[in-house]
Amino acid sequence: MDGLNMSRRIRRTPFTDRVEQSGVRGFSVVNHMLLPKAFQPTVEEDYWHLREHVQIWDVSCQRQVQITGQDAAALVQWMTPRNIAHAKVGDCFYIPIIDAQAGMINDPVMLKLAEDRFWLSIADSDVLLYAMGLALGRGMDVQICEPDVSPLAIQGPKAENLLAELFGEHIRDIGFFKFGWINVQGTRQLIARSGFSRQGGFEIYLEGGHHGSSLWDAIWEAGQAFNITPGCPNLIERIEGGLFSYGNEFTRENNPFEIGHGKFCKVDGSINYIGRAALQKIAADGVTRKIRGVAFDGGPCPTCSKPWTVLAGDTQIGAITSAIWSPRLKRNVGQSMIDRDFWAGGQAVTVHSQDGMIRTGEVSTLPFA
Amino acid sequence: MDGLNMSRRIRRTPFTDRVEQSGVRGFSVVNHMLLPKAFQPTVEEDYWHLREHVQIWDVSCQRQVQITGQDAAALVQWMTPRNIAHAKVGDCFYIPIIDAQAGMINDPVMLKLAEDRFWLSIADSDVLLYAMGLALGRGMDVQICEPDVSPLAIQGPKAENLLAELFGEHIRDIGFFKFGWINVQGTRQLIARSGFSRQGGFEIYLEGGHHGSSLWDAIWEAGQAFNITPGCPNLIERIEGGLFSYGNEFTRENNPFEIGHGKFCKVDGSINYIGRAALQKIAADGVTRKIRGVAFDGGPCPTCSKPWTVLAGDTQIGAITSAIWSPRLKRNVGQSMIDRDFWAGGQAVTVHSQDGMIRTGEVSTLPFA
Repeated sequence: MDGLNMSRRIRRTPFTDRVEQSGVRGFSVVNHMLLPKAFQPTVEEDYWHLREHVQIWDVSCQRQVQITGQDAAALVQWMTPRNIAHAKVGDCFYIPIIDAQAGMINDPVMLKLAEDRFWLSIADSDVLLYAMGLALGRGMDVQICEPDVSPLAIQGPKAENLLAELFGEHIRDIGFFKFGWINVQGTRQLIARSGFSRQGGFEIYLEGGHHGSSLWDAIWEAGQAFNITPGCPNLIERIEGGLFSYGNEFTRENNPFEIGHGKFCKVDGSINYIGRAALQKIAADGVTRKIRGVAFDGGPCPTCSKPWTVLAGDTQIGAITSAIWSPRLKRNVGQSMIDRDFWAGGQAVTVHSQDGMIRTGEVSTLPFA
Repeated sequence: MDGLNMSRRIRRTPFTDRVEQSGVRGFSVVNHMLLPKAFQPTVEEDYWHLREHVQIWDVSCQRQVQITGQDAAALVQWMTPRNIAHAKVGDCFYIPIIDAQAGMINDPVMLKLAEDRFWLSIADSDVLLYAMGLALGRGMDVQICEPDVSPLAIQGPKAENLLAELFGEHIRDIGFFKFGWINVQGTRQLIARSGFSRQGGFEIYLEGGHHGSSLWDAIWEAGQAFNITPGCPNLIERIEGGLFSYGNEFTRENNPFEIGHGKFCKVDGSINYIGRAALQKIAADGVTRKIRGVAFDGGPCPTCSKPWTVLAGDTQIGAITSAIWSPRLKRNVGQSMIDRDFWAGGQAVTVHSQDGMIRTGEVSTLPFA
């Protein structure tokens, strides 16, 4: 961790004041916005807490690209190989966005607000500009903007009880990757059962940044009885759980099949989208590498800030893009693209971490057991 | 300054190893890549050094969007209100990129490499995705990519002598905002007389990241006789010099006329581009605010990480977006959009800085004297 020099360009969120008052120790930058990355004394304490209790996460950097208008559905469908025709109002759809070569541009969650109104809750790339370019180029009848909407995640096994107490029992009826509505100080706010952990929970898409501190405070106060802490996507939990991060595990160099998202891709020719021909060829040929876990030894590994070579014998078979010590498994865990001939679980490997160590380990299925 | 949590997504550059060895103390993140932001013990020492000697800056985050092919010039022209028809091979053109409402999307330097080959050296937004969207939407015959090109800036009054000694006297003949070529260890590399300071200098657009450390080392070694230090865009020098930063001083909420770049905009109807009608209306009506300097008192101000209200009496007339103490002027200097009725130099104001202080000052022309 090094210093982050602050400026207006690195945008604060509606919750940054509270995040700072809660003792944040480090940030990352996603979509030109602050993402808190460290609170508890250690990421390990944060990990154990997330698995047992409930946390409040400022994930405002999951910016919304709002697409409305007569051609809104047509534009969204053109951007993704997933068939969105079956999406109902109230659905959250995970939709890969690919380029003409089937390389990943982003992997947002699409929220269908109305037949002609969508939010794309994005990972770290300017999907807004891409969508604007497509619409301008093709002359589509849409309006595209970034609304004043900032997601706040409530994650962990106690999230549902906390939010039911605060906002009403009806939130229990919201299904996984569905959204409903709650009343926050007289305003109607969207709440989805989703989030970047495997521990369950919700995301409140706060519309109106000026409500940020009061929403945080209300949850914080009600959360005391549930042992709430401030948190953030936890690297140990994410790696163990097999959740992938755009820019880390996959980039435009990768296609959806390589990250196990072929199931979201319609390649039978029934719908049209950018990159279809390339994706159909990949589906027919099969991929040459896929994302896998790697468990490895040698004591707690350093921060992974650049890919680490993974070898089988003398052959490079992949590169670890995220890694950390798992206090539960008492080994290091990482995620890596692994070449086809070596991707079976149990394959023996060596990992060349950026501290110069050579560490022994093996390929693992995901999520880690 | 708070902690920055590192990950692969926050990309390292070909020079990051050397930057770290040179004692970097802080970074920012631009275009998903590290930008060093602090070296010398203080930004003030860095400022004085830049004005007298020479510095080496890792500005790899100025990524290149390479546009090639039969429709390359047509696509670039469609993206900017500046007439690029007069650009010759070897020219660098500062080109505002605007949306349909004339809001700024980016303000890159365009390098014309051939009649059908351009680099856009970008500020902090994904122009690559925007250009891809436009080309896909309109079905243009272009190829768009981010090449393996990383600018290294050599800035300061001694830059020319240093680089002439190292790469040959011919670099003295390169005009302002023109580029030529140098030989770097057997490779042909582009060098432009440009850079994000008012102290003169060059930028080497290194093609082939694996040459990064050896290029840095060669300049560093030859630079010893010129009192070279590692550096970065200096906030004091930038604010005093009237250089504006996308995301800080201007965003999509602003148009080119508000940042004094009307001179780059062709509004006579002779060329076509996105946002033309909106820009013509702005040119005809005149703008209601413009960027100005603000000099103000009250001792060294804190870091400006969110806009600070600027008042004339009880009326808000602007918001400071960057500010710092100037050791030369012995006052704080800032940049702010200022409303039309108040933008004359000398207008008395109060500045509400984020430490809660109310500071007195006045509007200034830019650059600061």
